[in-house]
Amino acid sequence: MKLKIINPNTTQSMTDKIGQCAAAVAAPGTRISAVSPRMGPASIESHYDEALSVPGILDEILAGEQEGVDGYVIACFGDPGLYAAREVARGPVIGIAEAAMHMASVVGSSFSVVTTLARTCNIAWHLAERYGMKRFCNNVRACDLPVLELERPGSDARRIITEACRRALVEDRSECIVLGCAGMTDLCDEIADAIGAPVIDGVSCAVKLAEAMVSVRLGTSKRGDWARPLPKAYAGMLAPYALN
Amino acid sequence: MKLKIINPNTTQSMTDKIGQCAAAVAAPGTRISAVSPRMGPASIESHYDEALSVPGILDEILAGEQEGVDGYVIACFGDPGLYAAREVARGPVIGIAEAAMHMASVVGSSFSVVTTLARTCNIAWHLAERYGMKRFCNNVRACDLPVLELERPGSDARRIITEACRRALVEDRSECIVLGCAGMTDLCDEIADAIGAPVIDGVSCAVKLAEAMVSVRLGTSKRGDWARPLPKAYAGMLAPYALN
Amino acid sequence: MKLKIINPNTTQSMTDKIGQCAAAVAAPGTRISAVSPRMGPASIESHYDEALSVPGILDEILAGEQEGVDGYVIACFGDPGLYAAREVARGPVIGIAEAAMHMASVVGSSFSVVTTLARTCNIAWHLAERYGMKRFCNNVRACDLPVLELERPGSDARRIITEACRRALVEDRSECIVLGCAGMTDLCDEIADAIGAPVIDGVSCAVKLAEAMVSVRLGTSKRGDWARPLPKAYAGMLAPYALN
Amino acid sequence: MKLKIINPNTTQSMTDKIGQCAAAVAAPGTRISAVSPRMGPASIESHYDEALSVPGILDEILAGEQEGVDGYVIACFGDPGLYAAREVARGPVIGIAEAAMHMASVVGSSFSVVTTLARTCNIAWHLAERYGMKRFCNNVRACDLPVLELERPGSDARRIITEACRRALVEDRSECIVLGCAGMTDLCDEIADAIGAPVIDGVSCAVKLAEAMVSVRLGTSKRGDWARPLPKAYAGMLAPYALN
Amino acid sequence: MKLKIINPNTTQSMTDKIGQCAAAVAAPGTRISAVSPRMGPASIESHYDEALSVPGILDEILAGEQEGVDGYVIACFGDPGLYAAREVARGPVIGIAEAAMHMASVVGSSFSVVTTLARTCNIAWHLAERYGMKRFCNNVRACDLPVLELERPGSDARRIITEACRRALVEDRSECIVLGCAGMTDLCDEIADAIGAPVIDGVSCAVKLAEAMVSVRLGTSKRGDWARPLPKAYAGMLAPYALN
Amino acid sequence: MKLKIINPNTTQSMTDKIGQCAAAVAAPGTRISAVSPRMGPASIESHYDEALSVPGILDEILAGEQEGVDGYVIACFGDPGLYAAREVARGPVIGIAEAAMHMASVVGSSFSVVTTLARTCNIAWHLAERYGMKRFCNNVRACDLPVLELERPGSDARRIITEACRRALVEDRSECIVLGCAGMTDLCDEIADAIGAPVIDGVSCAVKLAEAMVSVRLGTSKRGDWARPLPKAYAGMLAPYALN
Repeated sequence: MKLKIINPNTTQSMTDKIGQCAAAVAAPGTRISAVSPRMGPASIESHYDEALSVPGILDEILAGEQEGVDGYVIACFGDPGLYAAREVARGPVIGIAEAAMHMASVVGSSFSVVTTLARTCNIAWHLAERYGMKRFCNNVRACDLPVLELERPGSDARRIITEACRRALVEDRSECIVLGCAGMTDLCDEIADAIGAPVIDGVSCAVKLAEAMVSVRLGTSKRGDWARPLPKAYAGMLAPYALN
Repeated sequence: MKLKIINPNTTQSMTDKIGQCAAAVAAPGTRISAVSPRMGPASIESHYDEALSVPGILDEILAGEQEGVDGYVIACFGDPGLYAAREVARGPVIGIAEAAMHMASVVGSSFSVVTTLARTCNIAWHLAERYGMKRFCNNVRACDLPVLELERPGSDARRIITEACRRALVEDRSECIVLGCAGMTDLCDEIADAIGAPVIDGVSCAVKLAEAMVSVRLGTSKRGDWARPLPKAYAGMLAPYALN
Repeated sequence: MKLKIINPNTTQSMTDKIGQCAAAVAAPGTRISAVSPRMGPASIESHYDEALSVPGILDEILAGEQEGVDGYVIACFGDPGLYAAREVARGPVIGIAEAAMHMASVVGSSFSVVTTLARTCNIAWHLAERYGMKRFCNNVRACDLPVLELERPGSDARRIITEACRRALVEDRSECIVLGCAGMTDLCDEIADAIGAPVIDGVSCAVKLAEAMVSVRLGTSKRGDWARPLPKAYAGMLAPYALN
Repeated sequence: MKLKIINPNTTQSMTDKIGQCAAAVAAPGTRISAVSPRMGPASIESHYDEALSVPGILDEILAGEQEGVDGYVIACFGDPGLYAAREVARGPVIGIAEAAMHMASVVGSSFSVVTTLARTCNIAWHLAERYGMKRFCNNVRACDLPVLELERPGSDARRIITEACRRALVEDRSECIVLGCAGMTDLCDEIADAIGAPVIDGVSCAVKLAEAMVSVRLGTSKRGDWARPLPKAYAGMLAPYALN
Repeated sequence: MKLKIINPNTTQSMTDKIGQCAAAVAAPGTRISAVSPRMGPASIESHYDEALSVPGILDEILAGEQEGVDGYVIACFGDPGLYAAREVARGPVIGIAEAAMHMASVVGSSFSVVTTLARTCNIAWHLAERYGMKRFCNNVRACDLPVLELERPGSDARRIITEACRRALVEDRSECIVLGCAGMTDLCDEIADAIGAPVIDGVSCAVKLAEAMVSVRLGTSKRGDWARPLPKAYAGMLAPYALN
Repeated sequence: MKLKIINPNTTQSMTDKIGQCAAAVAAPGTRISAVSPRMGPASIESHYDEALSVPGILDEILAGEQEGVDGYVIACFGDPGLYAAREVARGPVIGIAEAAMHMASVVGSSFSVVTTLARTCNIAWHLAERYGMKRFCNNVRACDLPVLELERPGSDARRIITEACRRALVEDRSECIVLGCAGMTDLCDEIADAIGAPVIDGVSCAVKLAEAMVSVRLGTSKRGDWARPLPKAYAGMLAPYALN
């Protein structure tokens, strides 16, 4: 089975880290490829960044369909372009926020999300609502860390995030923690050990969920909302996106 | 006051029609400019089209901020890129679905949306939820008309849409109708007369709402969710979108 | 266009203030008349006061229909009698809480209401729910000020309200503020300047929304919930309210 | 124990019927008095009628407090003035829609309301939401009968209502029926026998609920929302409503 | 009328206390029997305990149907086995959480539940949702007291619970208190006096609600969800539960 | 990894079928054991049956903890005893309704459940709400087939269920189908082929989800709701359930 993990930002160190975490949890028969798009923002910290990461994601999905990819993971906690991607994929396309929240609701009766900047909290709340997970989400907590701080050697991010997770357990009365950024994927086990409670990383969860779906032959329904888009003209620099 | 009406698709005949309807309702002191982006899909009928209309919309907003525009209308019923646009605008940015639904909830205690293709109904439902308008929305009805059929001379669209509106009043027990596509803007008064009930066109409503907000000096709050995005690098063909 | 602004309490100084604020934002062609009813409470601070303000409001609406009024604003933050008023009006009838909350949801992704007495907070919450705005309302904060304290020269109300608004931004993480009493209408710009964030005054918003609706020929739907009441006998001192 | 049953309309035949039904279910020690207010509409079939029934209801509550009444029932399915009444009563004040819906949710896992005119259905839906009962309410069905048709000798109302109840069981898949008008109170047992399923009459339920609350010494909480209104001036013909 | 009060745990001192409180509020013609099942946990403080209390409850209901019982109360705040019990009873079966929450929503516009252990708070929240009462429930507060501590002579429970109730009024802004354990039933009046606000005990409320329903001839609807279970084989030690 | 699949009813042919389906989708390293409890109902078609299946389920979970089981699946679409089971398990415990609904929400933007008897539809709706999946569930459809009819050779069940699935796609506008009974697990692929849309079987999904969770070292959080129950006495035939 071929799974393509798309890090929607263009920061290669983060893509590498995500790829390693994905490979570490993949089943023996699964081939993981982790990519960054050819275009777009270096990190995603706003609706603007998120919207502009989508052309790059769709470019990778369209290529993946040519390459025989069986399933996709969109590895940014805003799950950018998820529904658009599903329209052009046959197999499953899974967002890491989606996978993490679903899994968290089975692990505990409530969770807190610990994320980077406060301005992105609303995006997480919107996703929790969209996926039906709002009832399990006690809080979305920001650490006031820019995304790329997670990539900076010598950064204090690890300590700050662990501390936020610990406080979430107590102050939010949450029973487990969801890591709210793909860049935190390598911290998952360490934080779980430190705080003594389950910590959920969306990258691992999404990889396993994609594997599960492919193995029981579930992909994306082509009836209704996520059917293939109608063919039509595209203008300007987006002309290559025209389907037929 | 300068208002910019952005038709997110690249079909100029629709842009012209939207511009005329906007100008017809604008106050004496309002200057309307209606534009299509330099890039993107000829019509918007899927999540894919919608996502790929956003770079063009943002391009127009960024230009508008240089041109001294006071407020913006995004004239596609999916309100694509609305929150991203707000992050880079100072004044109000209003989606036509947003404006129409808010206005409809004051005109009647319930409404039905009448739109083009069935596959876009979910998009309208998502917006109704996002804006808090789900409780007023009795139904979203599709006419099985592609968007550009509304632009084709000799099309039967007018009759089909009117009939769908009439049925919505009876079958959905709705008290008014929201037109679910910017391309229907010119049909509003005619259908209202034909069915004997209020019909709400998002283009007109959004223009008046933008005027109202500018005149009482309300724009987009720059605290939190819609604050200006952080400066960062953008790669590939999206490099021009880097803010500073 | 003739707009009638009804202050549902009988305190003339408040009616005058409301009338001035309404006139200041009205378009050139709009004639504003601001009135207090002939009967009812000096201020509205309970369900009891609110219920007993309605006969006076309806009296003014019935008169307005004779006078050729095009649209109405009910200028009390509880929006008393709104649906009853709509049944007897042809044009739009807009409550100031309704207008302010709708407008606030476009200005920011969340708002706090700052109002007078704690006992009225529930009324604001009920309205937020009724209008679909609960999802945007982070908090309703009381200042422990009776309504008429806002009319008392030398009162400390201005300072107390400004302080409550400032705290709402920080503690509720709200992106804009809705003033929860018609008597605060004149404080709007001053508080906005003081706190550096948008402050929304329902009186201005309702005037502009009424103008907008009249100008695009939207009134109150006469199908269903807000159709004209059936003729019938009324007894006792309410006999004059019988319609025919 | 003294219970006062207020029929908010001024039609004495309906008041008499309501009083008889109330007396028939009251416990041995309960004294029932059933009254119509001195003012207001002959029947309640709109928001307008409902709003204008409230001064009469409050007049009866204020009198009841002087007369040593222990609890009140407001016997109109719109529960007009319920919260205002609670502010001026010490004991419980119960609306018949409230009592019927609560009881219905214990009798079956879902119910349908069968009421008079279609234009009042929204009022029932609003109450279902307000009381938390929307999740149990499968439908609100109108019979297209004016309220006073229930009082007309020789009317076909009985047959029409029974038929509507029967259809509600099948078409709405409801497990019991709530009668949506105080004027139907005498039909309850007969319809239950005819359709073979529980039928809930709000007048009986409200009487029993009021008795229950008084007997365990529960009244209306005077903290917060339903505390006694502040003293203030009332103008015009409403001057007698000023409290002190 | 015969009412059977089932304390789902096997602690006889608690059953006696519950029986006394039930008898104290029962009407003259009501015969109360209070029982503990022949099997099950000594106290109920988890989903596990709750699930394992249900066979004993159903055993008592099945026996009650033979004994001519008219109505049942399940006297544990988790309302264990309520729907299963309804399937095998003809008359009403009422849970004490259900009765208390319904009654509380009439007494005040919001309530707090004060219960024993923190781990049971979620159970109360689930019930509040299931009964439609979540909108009235401001908080569920735990006292960190095991259930049987309420039975221990010399315990400090009374003081701790009273204090929690007092704080709930202030910190949760609740207008009344619901006692979240059947073992608190005897404290109700004392706490109400101490805190000066209504305190609602589910045992009393459920007894009165059962009496009310029986007296107006309302039982459990046998259409749909709570119809009698189909006959079938039961294996092992549960063989006696097979119905026919 | 050892997974235990518990069929909560005592019908061995169904247990065998479930075991085969589970084994067919399990990963190479997974050992599946499928069991029926030693006690309980032959099929589960009511709240009563469901409640009485729980002692048997818990018995199997307690044994499984001794046997070194890594994860559990409860293979009845009512997910009986799920939370109680989680309290006594260290690893994940997954209900088949839970697994199927979560997976369905990723496969399509909406689903219909196709189940056996109408009286169990409410149970499915409750679960959809509890898991946050109500927003994706367009309908729960019953086939009017008793559960054991699925086990009867020569039954017409296969045809009836396929037809119900086909109608669900069209009439409910659902994008995929969830099979609402563990006894349908072997029909999944056949129906998917017949109707040309994804069909989701909870047994397969739950097995894959359990594998996924174990492989990323996620179990049941022991903080809060699903912590191990407190030790206490159990009486009567349930005495063996006392934990220590």
